Amino acid sequence: MARINENYLKLPGSYLFSAIGEKVRRYEALHPEADVIRLGIGDVTLPIAPKIIEALHAAVTEMGEADSFRGYAPDLGYDFLRNEIARKDYQEKGCRISPDEIFVSDGAKCDCANIQEIFGTDNVIGVCDPVYPVYVDSNVMAGRTGEYDACSGRYRGVIYMPCTAENGFVPELPAEVPDLIYLCFPNNPTGAVMTKEKLQGWVDYAKAHDSVILYDAAYEAYISEPGIPHSIYECDGARECAVEFRSFSKTAGFTGLRLGFTVIPKELEAGGIRLHPLWARRHGTKYNGAPYIIQRAGEAVYSEKGQQQIREQIAWYMGNAGIISEGLQAAGYRVSGGVNAPYIWLAVPEGMTDWEFFDFLLEKANVVGTPGSGFGPGGAGYFRLTAFGNREKTIEAMERIRSI
Amino acid sequence: MARINENYLKLPGSYLFSAIGEKVRRYEALHPEADVIRLGIGDVTLPIAPKIIEALHAAVTEMGEADSFRGYAPDLGYDFLRNEIARKDYQEKGCRISPDEIFVSDGAKCDCANIQEIFGTDNVIGVCDPVYPVYVDSNVMAGRTGEYDACSGRYRGVIYMPCTAENGFVPELPAEVPDLIYLCFPNNPTGAVMTKEKLQGWVDYAKAHDSVILYDAAYEAYISEPGIPHSIYECDGARECAVEFRSFSKTAGFTGLRLGFTVIPKELEAGGIRLHPLWARRHGTKYNGAPYIIQRAGEAVYSEKGQQQIREQIAWYMGNAGIISEGLQAAGYRVSGGVNAPYIWLAVPEGMTDWEFFDFLLEKANVVGTPGSGFGPGGAGYFRLTAFGNREKTIEAMERIRSI
Repeated sequence: MARINENYLKLPGSYLFSAIGEKVRRYEALHPEADVIRLGIGDVTLPIAPKIIEALHAAVTEMGEADSFRGYAPDLGYDFLRNEIARKDYQEKGCRISPDEIFVSDGAKCDCANIQEIFGTDNVIGVCDPVYPVYVDSNVMAGRTGEYDACSGRYRGVIYMPCTAENGFVPELPAEVPDLIYLCFPNNPTGAVMTKEKLQGWVDYAKAHDSVILYDAAYEAYISEPGIPHSIYECDGARECAVEFRSFSKTAGFTGLRLGFTVIPKELEAGGIRLHPLWARRHGTKYNGAPYIIQRAGEAVYSEKGQQQIREQIAWYMGNAGIISEGLQAAGYRVSGGVNAPYIWLAVPEGMTDWEFFDFLLEKANVVGTPGSGFGPGGAGYFRLTAFGNREKTIEAMERIRSI
Repeated sequence: MARINENYLKLPGSYLFSAIGEKVRRYEALHPEADVIRLGIGDVTLPIAPKIIEALHAAVTEMGEADSFRGYAPDLGYDFLRNEIARKDYQEKGCRISPDEIFVSDGAKCDCANIQEIFGTDNVIGVCDPVYPVYVDSNVMAGRTGEYDACSGRYRGVIYMPCTAENGFVPELPAEVPDLIYLCFPNNPTGAVMTKEKLQGWVDYAKAHDSVILYDAAYEAYISEPGIPHSIYECDGARECAVEFRSFSKTAGFTGLRLGFTVIPKELEAGGIRLHPLWARRHGTKYNGAPYIIQRAGEAVYSEKGQQQIREQIAWYMGNAGIISEGLQAAGYRVSGGVNAPYIWLAVPEGMTDWEFFDFLLEKANVVGTPGSGFGPGGAGYFRLTAFGNREKTIEAMERIRSI
């Protein structure tokens, strides 16, 4: 008799964004005249930059002609893209990463979710609280956690690393040592960043304890201040203890095109066994490469014009972030994030839960955000707004919030 | 201390096609004048059909404009594609499958490899021998098998279902009942098919034993004879015991575009628990949807012109299959497959192993095929050629084989 993977039953019901969607739909059905502004979900809104569109068209044309048609892509990505990534994202920035350490994929979400497969189920994971839910849920599914405890909102057997206003939303090195440490900086959902010194501390900690850091750098392109590392490989010794995930989603608006990559340095080992060939084997067995035309689009991101165009887009989004930060502060809220990240994290007013604040904002200002507790119990009392909205709507949302 | 997933260490060294590639490279280095013809790997060679290219260009243009840009796709696929699939592939062919039972993905390989995740690690799998290696390897990685036994070429704890000349390369219902049964018809690598009656027997068997059939129908578009089921849902009761995988790779040449889908009927349960929400949850957590432009390409496959164009391509490949079958028979080989599938399966001459035959064919005819034992010990003594090559080269390959 076939039996299911019972770990799935540990996952509590509905996904955060489905719950939000449902609430908004219900509100709109009751108030069809309301002009609801969505600043909740982290999806981009600007169209793909012209240089990238050009590359996509050219690649599509190639696929339609006998001489230039391409079938299966190399499992780990085309060299033309891996070379650009290694050079522009790492080598030119002083990080020693070679093209064959880059594994091209269809996005950082998939990679972040799948990476745990190459580790034993007996590894204990450490995650920030609040946290991007994918890190936790993928480990729940794999049986690397105990049951969900509805009271604490936490899974048993997971080391939660609190990110609070007191520590500037940057976790302390935990006393109980995780085997696998998930870090995401610039952070989703808080928008917080780590200084290079702080990140070096994590690298040293991981090396001292033979832990592996799974470093999600999906938002590195939004860093505007100096002294904030774009890659964990800026830290000494990171090649021996860290995997890094990158995404084209927020960097170049690829949420609907799907492209990302994972870096696994060849020195990196767990229990004396190198991770690079394991991930290569996983890719070869369970994945079939990102589409050729999308990889050409990725290549165009690294061209001079592509870089200029995506930087303009990022600057534009960060303009939104500034408007939100200032607007909320003018309205009397305590905010953080929004300087080196497209996320603004605000403390909800005293005496309200974050879900009550969600309802309050939806009803009084017709503005949708994301309750912090959706990212874990450590997010309770906070609220996430994103800079990816339309400019006019963002301005109007702030005006409405100021006036309530 | 981080520890790896030790199941990976059970996998024997090099992947079949890497080993072949290495042998061919070595031969070409020693014989730079040789014109080696590759009929080994199952990759398509015809360019993407014009109607599909048109859809791709249109979708690329949409992505570059503010009004029509699309960010994250729905996790399970766009309705425009799921509706077409449900209607054209199932409903119009008498199968009761609804759009919300279709899960769009980036290919059948990924789905076939990932589906095991929603089942417990204590399920026993049953696979054909020979077999597409992904079914086995993905289960090895997940710890659903014992060690590899180099003598038998088999993993302990797996039920192998022999496919031999005696049974027409269609397995018998096994005495020891697998919990999960992988079937692929038209078959890779043998090119064999199952009659509807035979497949109904498998459905009845699975239902009687509460097993789940994982049915890979990636090659259904190559079926030319009547009475051969294109979908397992043509069988009574399959909605209660079968998952089906489909691919655009061989149907419409999407090996480099990446698109496929999985069908999970809502009734389908394992141990009283429905699989549909589990797979939906897996998709939502670990996947982020196929690219919008690729889904539009998939939609174009179902248009009248798209259908006509891809049918011409399939007919052309099947022309190659006929040339190979006849050529090999004229050369005195025993062959099967090639009628309802793009694969031709031939018995190697007495007194030679399939790897010896590989070397023989490479040296004497400069033709590359795939040794059957690469697909499992049951493939020993057989050899796979594919119909995806260039027409002229295919003809020449047969001439060379006849003349040795």
